[in-house]
Amino acid sequence: MKELEERILKEGKHLGGGILKVDSFLNHQVDTLLMTKCGSELARFFAPFKPEKVLTAEISGIAPALMTAAELGIPVIYARKQKPITMANDVYFTSAPSHTKGLEISLMVSRDFLKKGEKILIVDDFLATGETIMALARIVFAAEAVLVGIGAVIEKTFERGRELLSPLGVPVFSLARIKAMYNQHIEMDSQ
Amino acid sequence: MKELEERILKEGKHLGGGILKVDSFLNHQVDTLLMTKCGSELARFFAPFKPEKVLTAEISGIAPALMTAAELGIPVIYARKQKPITMANDVYFTSAPSHTKGLEISLMVSRDFLKKGEKILIVDDFLATGETIMALARIVFAAEAVLVGIGAVIEKTFERGRELLSPLGVPVFSLARIKAMYNQHIEMDSQ
Repeated sequence: MKELEERILKEGKHLGGGILKVDSFLNHQVDTLLMTKCGSELARFFAPFKPEKVLTAEISGIAPALMTAAELGIPVIYARKQKPITMANDVYFTSAPSHTKGLEISLMVSRDFLKKGEKILIVDDFLATGETIMALARIVFAAEAVLVGIGAVIEKTFERGRELLSPLGVPVFSLARIKAMYNQHIEMDSQ
Repeated sequence: MKELEERILKEGKHLGGGILKVDSFLNHQVDTLLMTKCGSELARFFAPFKPEKVLTAEISGIAPALMTAAELGIPVIYARKQKPITMANDVYFTSAPSHTKGLEISLMVSRDFLKKGEKILIVDDFLATGETIMALARIVFAAEAVLVGIGAVIEKTFERGRELLSPLGVPVFSLARIKAMYNQHIEMDSQ
């Protein structure tokens, strides 16, 4: 998605260690027009797979997942990392290593909202190592729901998450792909 | 907003102590159609005040704030409660007591995204005691930006947040107002 690639090149900052700062439009301040377009693009790609719900992880997955789900006219569920007071104890639970945070994060989804046989599309802001998305996929499988696709706004191809996810056998689609970052340079992999 | 009131009465659960569980449509699973309508209603009310940005607090403020900002065609900023690795040290910082969590929460906004004189609309999922929203207002003032309004999806009028916010002198608008909750009963204050 050309507009997104341009924004990454213009406003993105490589902070070192593969960390990309895009908080001017994606995960602190959100450009709602751009995010609406991202949601439309993801929805257009995945609509043929007939997802019934979108699943993401809080916090920064919420905006792109919400816009994708809104365009598809289906609900979105965000997995919680900390159990809110309103969440029952009976949850689907898994965890994933966070390389940016240097710790293991918990992911919890209420059993009320994922049902056996339901078609689930996972959407997240980043596809990097793929470990958070793989954790969400484990929740889908625990619920005996059906994973139909994986979408991301930005893929860091050099972290090889796509290879990790490939055994899942579902389409993986990202809107912008970064193949390398070094010093102040961000190199896109334009299709 | 009648549709929202009906959903609260149908799906909301009073967990005791003034805690309302609405995670089937607002803050875990999100009904995107309902949330789009909520955003439109808030946008319609506040459009005359010409907000230039929407400010909210992660996590559950993101969905309604994003939909409001999208409808207004302006960016949304979500204050972070934990400093992400991509956030600089130079932030607007405040804190607010969380009664549902029983602790003090931090709220941080990058100085890059709130500018002097900018017209800011605060949107959150709940208006209860008003303390989180008041903390967001302090961030607006610290940036010398201009607060033009406060919107919430659900107001718990019995927690009197509106009174706390009244000295701010800006319009406060909520889409559904709960005046009492006891045992299994939720009583709406329909206008």
